[in-house]
Amino acid sequence: MDIDNLRRDTPTTAQLIHLNNAGAGLMPTVVSEAIQHYIAEEARHGGYETGARYAEPLARFYTEAATLLHTQPRNIAFTYNATDAYARALSAIPFRAGDVILTTNDDYISNQFAFLSLQKRVGIRVVRANDHPEGGVIVDHLIELARQLRPVLIAITHVPTNSGRIQPVEAFGNVAREVGAWYIVDACQSIGQMPVDAPAIGADFLSATGRKFLRGPRGTGLLYISDRALEAGLEPLFIDMRGADWTADDAYEPQATARRFEQWEVAPALQLGLTEALRYANALDLTAVAERNAMLRNRLQTGLSSIPGLRLLDQGNHLASLLLFTRPGQQPDKMQTALKQYQINFSMSFTNYALIDWERKGVAWALRLSPHYYNTEGEIDTAIEVIREAV
Amino acid sequence: MDIDNLRRDTPTTAQLIHLNNAGAGLMPTVVSEAIQHYIAEEARHGGYETGARYAEPLARFYTEAATLLHTQPRNIAFTYNATDAYARALSAIPFRAGDVILTTNDDYISNQFAFLSLQKRVGIRVVRANDHPEGGVIVDHLIELARQLRPVLIAITHVPTNSGRIQPVEAFGNVAREVGAWYIVDACQSIGQMPVDAPAIGADFLSATGRKFLRGPRGTGLLYISDRALEAGLEPLFIDMRGADWTADDAYEPQATARRFEQWEVAPALQLGLTEALRYANALDLTAVAERNAMLRNRLQTGLSSIPGLRLLDQGNHLASLLLFTRPGQQPDKMQTALKQYQINFSMSFTNYALIDWERKGVAWALRLSPHYYNTEGEIDTAIEVIREAV
Repeated sequence: MDIDNLRRDTPTTAQLIHLNNAGAGLMPTVVSEAIQHYIAEEARHGGYETGARYAEPLARFYTEAATLLHTQPRNIAFTYNATDAYARALSAIPFRAGDVILTTNDDYISNQFAFLSLQKRVGIRVVRANDHPEGGVIVDHLIELARQLRPVLIAITHVPTNSGRIQPVEAFGNVAREVGAWYIVDACQSIGQMPVDAPAIGADFLSATGRKFLRGPRGTGLLYISDRALEAGLEPLFIDMRGADWTADDAYEPQATARRFEQWEVAPALQLGLTEALRYANALDLTAVAERNAMLRNRLQTGLSSIPGLRLLDQGNHLASLLLFTRPGQQPDKMQTALKQYQINFSMSFTNYALIDWERKGVAWALRLSPHYYNTEGEIDTAIEVIREAV
Repeated sequence: MDIDNLRRDTPTTAQLIHLNNAGAGLMPTVVSEAIQHYIAEEARHGGYETGARYAEPLARFYTEAATLLHTQPRNIAFTYNATDAYARALSAIPFRAGDVILTTNDDYISNQFAFLSLQKRVGIRVVRANDHPEGGVIVDHLIELARQLRPVLIAITHVPTNSGRIQPVEAFGNVAREVGAWYIVDACQSIGQMPVDAPAIGADFLSATGRKFLRGPRGTGLLYISDRALEAGLEPLFIDMRGADWTADDAYEPQATARRFEQWEVAPALQLGLTEALRYANALDLTAVAERNAMLRNRLQTGLSSIPGLRLLDQGNHLASLLLFTRPGQQPDKMQTALKQYQINFSMSFTNYALIDWERKGVAWALRLSPHYYNTEGEIDTAIEVIREAV
């Protein structure tokens, strides 16, 4: 990878050290300019008139997203964000009282809320497989629970937002088919930083956001829907005129493709921005990206491990490019101030973002650093030194 | 109103004749530049970092939207579009088999789909009040049905998208309260072209889009939620970390305000653009806007009525600034070509967009023209002449 060249695609990398890619990655210039240009076109020609002129570039979203996920355009829907994608997928499953959703302890907070809401509203049951003592779901326990409970849905977050651990999502596709469960994977934090092959994972639904390691705009997401789910006739609860045709007073006909999961009204400017981000990611070798990110993350981990008083939340292999640490008994203020002073972007998490996982770990807050391929070893070293000074 | 000045706020009005405000209005320069500037800031500083810097301007969305709807910021939620707002509202009502949704024949197509989906999924019953022979719901019939059927929800579209008729939305708030129904109003086509007072209408939910007569960006919407609905504890089915706090392994606590209807991840650039559009609308006298639009629409109606072979779909008083007409037995091609040649923006509707209403009226297609205050009498006259020539 020619890092200098890649950094020139995003000029602000010369001005700041962005280690908040798990929050929102920096948009390359091609992404931000595509959005700005499209807005100018809308102001000049009108919203729908511009949409008609850009029908072809906008349609490229489906081919680019399909390339990224190793699938076909018919399996791709554009959504407003990952939670929206996830909710549309959940809404397609006609849950009944007593149905089981089988998941893990560190699924994403908004997914957990959706499960709890379904528990309250419909009377489903949420069951969470046990974790290894060092974190990460115990694969065999989840498989055993699947065979025992015959869940309607298995739900796994590929890389939890409050832990760098990569969950073994490929391990559950087969058991989902075996027990007749639907299988949903939240790929928010993995997409764009490693290859993600939706059919190989065996997912029926795979949701993701545009804004993180994919480096697209905020307010964009995508949803993969398997042929199995499409052929079974799953459709979102609030299907709209984009997703179906009105055929009789009291009947509509859903689209044959994943289009049935979309809504009519999107922001085409953002869809175009996401398309540019997808094209940019597809032009990279994502295996090389994953390797480089692992190198940067390990360098960060080694450096931070040598600072007394810090507690790193995740150890071990199979870690993605996000690293969380806390300082037991202390407040994060000094570190935050120091990082801001050096223009180092980071993010903060608190217990109520990851209640189950962190209450058990005894964590009140964590500072999260999430490098991406365009970061340099020098930037990682600077961040380590700034934190060492602050501590 | 100083029309020349207002046109200068949107320089493209000098280049084209935009009569597609019911599709998407032209963004004033303050709106498009706010979006472009914000995207540049994100590319420069990072997504979340820019969000933190713009917390105050972004929060102004709530005060501006509250001003427009004559309510309080606590009653306002930001959404991705009107259908999204509508779906979140519907999802908050715990429908059961046999529950009745009472609506009209020309409610918006995507709303109709949502009702039909709930009919299929939950077993609710959709009942539509009768229309007057000339169109528009018969108020007394709807009130009678409400008393007789005790619906769980009354759903009215303020101005149908395929008819210029202004529905008497104020007539149903009282009966909704009397029979214990929730009351939802789709204000997509009314907001920005006339005063809309959500509490005076007696709505529990009022949904709207940003992109039409309000002149905001595509991909934005808003939802008003009454204090009655908030206090009754209504919450969306797919509540997320923006809408609630995680309080125990299996429990969350919804926000006290309409915030509970929002999702965490939005496009702040678009939220800021919508805020500018709201501010721009609030600076106008919306009663004067409604009067000017009625004048433009009447001029258009008079002119088109004098063209032999055209059939105007709506007659009478209480018409908003959208006018639809067809040419029985003919195709629209020639008119479309002529309008495009003269840079006149318009939109097309087809039977399956308004199935119930148009099958009865025997309409296969309609051309829709929707002027807004920034249009001139001269532009209206040009459009009439171009259509006359084409016919």
